[in-house]
Amino acid sequence: MDKKNKTDDLLKKLMSKELKIHELSNFVDENTAAEVRRRYISKKYKLNSNSFIHVQRASIDMDDAAKRNISNLIGVTQIPLGFVEINIKGQYAHGQNPVFLATTEGKLVDGIGRAAKALQDTGISTRILKDEMTRSVIVNASSLDDAYKIKEHAAKNKDKIKKYFLESSKHLELKSISTYVIGKTVFIRYGATTGSAMGMNMITIGAHAATLKMLDDLKKKGINADFFTESGNMCIDKKPGHINQILGRGISISAEAIVKKEIVEKYFKVNPEKIAKMNYYKNYIGSSLGGAVGNNAHIANILAAIFTAYGQDLAQIVDGASGYDNIEVTSNGDLYISILLPALEIGTFGGGTVRETQKEVLLASGVYGGDDQKGETKYKFAEIIAATVLAGELNLIAAQAAQELSSSHASIKRG
Amino acid sequence: MDKKNKTDDLLKKLMSKELKIHELSNFVDENTAAEVRRRYISKKYKLNSNSFIHVQRASIDMDDAAKRNISNLIGVTQIPLGFVEINIKGQYAHGQNPVFLATTEGKLVDGIGRAAKALQDTGISTRILKDEMTRSVIVNASSLDDAYKIKEHAAKNKDKIKKYFLESSKHLELKSISTYVIGKTVFIRYGATTGSAMGMNMITIGAHAATLKMLDDLKKKGINADFFTESGNMCIDKKPGHINQILGRGISISAEAIVKKEIVEKYFKVNPEKIAKMNYYKNYIGSSLGGAVGNNAHIANILAAIFTAYGQDLAQIVDGASGYDNIEVTSNGDLYISILLPALEIGTFGGGTVRETQKEVLLASGVYGGDDQKGETKYKFAEIIAATVLAGELNLIAAQAAQELSSSHASIKRG
Amino acid sequence: MDKKNKTDDLLKKLMSKELKIHELSNFVDENTAAEVRRRYISKKYKLNSNSFIHVQRASIDMDDAAKRNISNLIGVTQIPLGFVEINIKGQYAHGQNPVFLATTEGKLVDGIGRAAKALQDTGISTRILKDEMTRSVIVNASSLDDAYKIKEHAAKNKDKIKKYFLESSKHLELKSISTYVIGKTVFIRYGATTGSAMGMNMITIGAHAATLKMLDDLKKKGINADFFTESGNMCIDKKPGHINQILGRGISISAEAIVKKEIVEKYFKVNPEKIAKMNYYKNYIGSSLGGAVGNNAHIANILAAIFTAYGQDLAQIVDGASGYDNIEVTSNGDLYISILLPALEIGTFGGGTVRETQKEVLLASGVYGGDDQKGETKYKFAEIIAATVLAGELNLIAAQAAQELSSSHASIKRG
Amino acid sequence: MDKKNKTDDLLKKLMSKELKIHELSNFVDENTAAEVRRRYISKKYKLNSNSFIHVQRASIDMDDAAKRNISNLIGVTQIPLGFVEINIKGQYAHGQNPVFLATTEGKLVDGIGRAAKALQDTGISTRILKDEMTRSVIVNASSLDDAYKIKEHAAKNKDKIKKYFLESSKHLELKSISTYVIGKTVFIRYGATTGSAMGMNMITIGAHAATLKMLDDLKKKGINADFFTESGNMCIDKKPGHINQILGRGISISAEAIVKKEIVEKYFKVNPEKIAKMNYYKNYIGSSLGGAVGNNAHIANILAAIFTAYGQDLAQIVDGASGYDNIEVTSNGDLYISILLPALEIGTFGGGTVRETQKEVLLASGVYGGDDQKGETKYKFAEIIAATVLAGELNLIAAQAAQELSSSHASIKRG
Repeated sequence: MDKKNKTDDLLKKLMSKELKIHELSNFVDENTAAEVRRRYISKKYKLNSNSFIHVQRASIDMDDAAKRNISNLIGVTQIPLGFVEINIKGQYAHGQNPVFLATTEGKLVDGIGRAAKALQDTGISTRILKDEMTRSVIVNASSLDDAYKIKEHAAKNKDKIKKYFLESSKHLELKSISTYVIGKTVFIRYGATTGSAMGMNMITIGAHAATLKMLDDLKKKGINADFFTESGNMCIDKKPGHINQILGRGISISAEAIVKKEIVEKYFKVNPEKIAKMNYYKNYIGSSLGGAVGNNAHIANILAAIFTAYGQDLAQIVDGASGYDNIEVTSNGDLYISILLPALEIGTFGGGTVRETQKEVLLASGVYGGDDQKGETKYKFAEIIAATVLAGELNLIAAQAAQELSSSHASIKRG
Repeated sequence: MDKKNKTDDLLKKLMSKELKIHELSNFVDENTAAEVRRRYISKKYKLNSNSFIHVQRASIDMDDAAKRNISNLIGVTQIPLGFVEINIKGQYAHGQNPVFLATTEGKLVDGIGRAAKALQDTGISTRILKDEMTRSVIVNASSLDDAYKIKEHAAKNKDKIKKYFLESSKHLELKSISTYVIGKTVFIRYGATTGSAMGMNMITIGAHAATLKMLDDLKKKGINADFFTESGNMCIDKKPGHINQILGRGISISAEAIVKKEIVEKYFKVNPEKIAKMNYYKNYIGSSLGGAVGNNAHIANILAAIFTAYGQDLAQIVDGASGYDNIEVTSNGDLYISILLPALEIGTFGGGTVRETQKEVLLASGVYGGDDQKGETKYKFAEIIAATVLAGELNLIAAQAAQELSSSHASIKRG
Repeated sequence: MDKKNKTDDLLKKLMSKELKIHELSNFVDENTAAEVRRRYISKKYKLNSNSFIHVQRASIDMDDAAKRNISNLIGVTQIPLGFVEINIKGQYAHGQNPVFLATTEGKLVDGIGRAAKALQDTGISTRILKDEMTRSVIVNASSLDDAYKIKEHAAKNKDKIKKYFLESSKHLELKSISTYVIGKTVFIRYGATTGSAMGMNMITIGAHAATLKMLDDLKKKGINADFFTESGNMCIDKKPGHINQILGRGISISAEAIVKKEIVEKYFKVNPEKIAKMNYYKNYIGSSLGGAVGNNAHIANILAAIFTAYGQDLAQIVDGASGYDNIEVTSNGDLYISILLPALEIGTFGGGTVRETQKEVLLASGVYGGDDQKGETKYKFAEIIAATVLAGELNLIAAQAAQELSSSHASIKRG
Repeated sequence: MDKKNKTDDLLKKLMSKELKIHELSNFVDENTAAEVRRRYISKKYKLNSNSFIHVQRASIDMDDAAKRNISNLIGVTQIPLGFVEINIKGQYAHGQNPVFLATTEGKLVDGIGRAAKALQDTGISTRILKDEMTRSVIVNASSLDDAYKIKEHAAKNKDKIKKYFLESSKHLELKSISTYVIGKTVFIRYGATTGSAMGMNMITIGAHAATLKMLDDLKKKGINADFFTESGNMCIDKKPGHINQILGRGISISAEAIVKKEIVEKYFKVNPEKIAKMNYYKNYIGSSLGGAVGNNAHIANILAAIFTAYGQDLAQIVDGASGYDNIEVTSNGDLYISILLPALEIGTFGGGTVRETQKEVLLASGVYGGDDQKGETKYKFAEIIAATVLAGELNLIAAQAAQELSSSHASIKRG
């Protein structure tokens, strides 16, 4: 049977439900499977036969993508990719760095670029404050008293539990154990470093295994408890939540910069006082009255563009977006700005980083995690992100201070 | 000068800073500009000359993208695109619908697909509860007394202010005005429908214009106040915040489904009681102890995949992710599930929906907003999203109840 | 049987469990019952016979207290009562007002008094922004579709539902109905004015009755739903919660004052700039990082002292404490301060206001609600509270700016 | 000059502002001063001369109260005091305990008493999970890099800093140091045990002194930073906030009980299933939708009554009120309930505990802290509170499940 006949036959079987959509991969390579699926959709939903002209123009390895990243593949979504250059004074990133941004948010790249230029001379300092991916399991004991003993056991046996984590993966170094007891129920939140990987899968497997071993140890002491679930939402993954702001998750990082008054006025057409006041009114009074988690202008925008370009998990924009800005006028009249990202969940290896366009961008930034055992590429990547966030925040707050936001001449139309 | 010489020349000027990166667009078409930029990056950061093989394989209209969506364009990011089919019983979406998902989160499509099959017979009901895009401006009065009078004025002149909004755009129909006064400072939060567009730009411009007109009216009554900013963060855009959960933003929508006990056990290998208990422990006790906004398993994952595929603003995943699940066992022993998305900020026209792959997907789902004046494509799209979110939540919670999460045989490895 | 014998006999019966403690009230007056109870406690728990010397020295009408306020009465707790005088420029309170404060928090009265003196010349302006006591019932419909119809019915029949409220109490004027739907479950949050009473009981009864009538109306339209509970915690009573900050509960009120730079420096030994900076760092950056609801220094302290003195429900300090401060330096270099209390739940009639010492204080402040149909005493009382809160906030923030807090010479040792 | 003349004279001087109100204490004893103040208020605000009949009937030591607890004393507020008896199975409280409650919230004592009876047979277990009073200072470094070094220094020098705390008070044992860095600003949150005292003053003084010493140490290493304030609101005192829920403040404690199905039905006229469902709908779905901190029915009510009776700081009800309930049906059909209070800030010595009526109650409960070096009276007191809270929560949730709340026959009218 030639290819045309074969795909016709597969399509017929899909339409008659003789074959399930994901089963296609068992019969043909993924490029062909994608083609059959596109035809199936067009036929079933009565679309034009040329409905997926662009979607099919993928340059990626479809078989690999189907194996690692997705099911029922039909092609790719293409998102415009741009870049800016930023001067970073970090512990891992030094000097000028290209930063890639994939977005359809018109003028976002322009805006970050404007601030990057204003910050070019002094550069942006960054410091990594913490590195802990977390998972919180739930264990159900038979009573509050047993729950209390589990809490005590966990506190006293950290080294042993650390060993259990390393048995699961040599990259999984336990840093902290926090236990929360309500009656007979125990939430155990583990924090660990995970090398260059973002680490969710690694720590999920490790936390599961280590907890089971700990429950065995407890059993020997006469304390019985059931493992209830690997994820009790005190982790807290892909949901905005104060625990991540307070204890950190992934990388916690801060950045700061000082911009001369003249530079501020040259680039943003407004003085430092007005920018500081805008930050206070908008990011603090406004956000607080609205019950926001995080006090910033549009960190989510910057993270979304970077996460897309660098193959990060886009759902983790949610956690990362709860960052904080501080803007003040120095005693010299210059502008001081700092930002804090308590929960930047990123990786330079695994997940979406393997895809072709994303990997090119990671490599071009010198942060592809391939052979990186220590997570240094991840730290450099965190510094690049923090610096870009600072630039993006400065730009939008300054634009608002200069009342550019909805002006017809404004080069900056978001926030 | 032939093309090769021309690009060589432009590259030289970039390197010598004679030319700025974004100025390239003034001299060559955007495809050529992107090529020069790629060469510039390679040269400046000492990369291999073939560093951007895949990034450049864009099928999009680069000139249009440069105009609408991005600056300093160098190519595209490609994200694998798959689909599932879901049976929806909504007011705008009826019966079987293809849902497109762009993601690198392995098994996400599979997981949603499993639940979609379990939900196939009964279908997923959806109802749109509210439609209001919002913007909150800040106005500074001269005193608390004047601020108080502005609040009263806004409450009494809603029709007039509504007219001001329509003068800005005929698609901008004002629905609500909420004013928050602290001393002399007034936050005014406007809510309006915006047709098929997501509507942020539209409402920003409208809110600005309408507020200026209102301040003119107030001036005539002897009340002076300054317009401080278009966005005071009580909107609240791209930041997680309770005001959006409580008052809604964009589309507020709920979905529900009932699944027979036998179906539950067939597809998820666990009974309804355990799934309901998992929801209570994980999404309510766990999320609450962790200080989460929203009580769900991984709504962000589903939104991220849909927003990417359909050209939505990825930063708005942040607001949408704060949704709520409810799972109960019915008196018959079947499983009842409902979800609530209070702040689903989406559009079927403008923004990223114009890009080629994204538009194909919108058209294939019958939700491209081209000529849609009433926003019906947006409503249908909201229903598709809500149904997919319900399926995705059910699948992960059931998987956790069945302890699949970190199991080596698990087909579902996330959450 | 003489009194001594009678009480001996009752005591014996309590000890032998022949009689229950609260049943004492059936046999003797409440003064005697309290005496028997004190003897019972002393005997049962082997205390000295003179363990309750002070507790018994009540001047209150014990029978009335037992009827209205408490069971198992044994006497009273005595809390020291002081006062300050504050200059208020409100809509209900004008000029100098005595404010009574019951507290054991050393120096609280002193501190407020210091700020009151600094604010004496200019006075404190106050404006009431909203007056709505709220109750949120839960109704369970048979489906999302029915829940949706209930939401629509409530929105369209506000006048009818308003009538139902007035049938319950002529003081209960419905102002707003907000409905929240998740699947088949409907939370209906009613807001109403309640005259001079705080109004929780009134609105609980009214909301119950009105909802039952509405469900009857719905039944006639073929929509069946069950009344699930009078209080679904979206009210939200005696719990800190964003919904009250955003929608208000009880009285929402703001206050402001301007203090001349010289006055600031005279009273607080620090300049306005430092006070403004302290507010920003402490109340905004610090509170936000800590995930606080409300941004203030110690509003709870002031409310606790006032609520105790004026017979308010002390558990409602919780809701009231989530207030907001704003402090700025004016263009003249003077200090501008404003505060916002979104959820001040108070009453001047009913509840604890009937008790003797509390009533004396209400009368002395001219805010006892006896014959007040319109709630004007409640509004005046709200203005007194708001002004006192402003004074208390200014004092502590200024004290911290002057680094008095833990200094051995500090007159102000709290925060 | 006889007493009458003397007080007349003082009154005249107050009226003419020759004398300030608080200066009275310099001339007469506090009983006389209070009398003059009462006359002053009556005269100045044109009240009847017998306006303060009850307020003056204090049995407390006025001079001592004026010294320790309050200024401008005029008498006392009297609050009705009742009690219940509760069976506790804790680590410090064993068996039957009298619990004193001061309240005007009619039926609160009754309600708790009902649940206490239902819980009599099995008793209420309690476990203390943590004991840490906290204070968060703010330090301003000269740069992010220095801030980062301060964070590292604090992490590495815990023992040294612990010594600094003990130098301030031998009761002040440092348990934890958490540092939060945003740019050059460092919040340092210290946690320490404080013996039987609630400990705010102690830790404020200790944190100040220890931080100054640490800054000296840092100076020697070339790191300069300014002490900005003793309280940066990450403590977080008297404000509701997630950091206290997550890290704990004061005592963190959990309680649990199992109640036989028959007992539940006998006392509450409703089955365990309905009570569990009420908890889920009200305390979890409702509270979460409303953006509450804590998930409970009315913990604030119980704390308010206990705090008042036992001389606690009433403003700290705010922090304590953010507790959590869990209610489930056991496999036997019985009712399981547990509660968690993460931030119970209490003391059995100092503050309001010295006042006569309050001290009697502390002594009668066996929890007066006089000679208690280890804080054991505080722990016992915490267990009494936790058990009472569990009883109060069970009662109200059960009452709502039985629909007693607004019923005219209901014995329970609050929530």
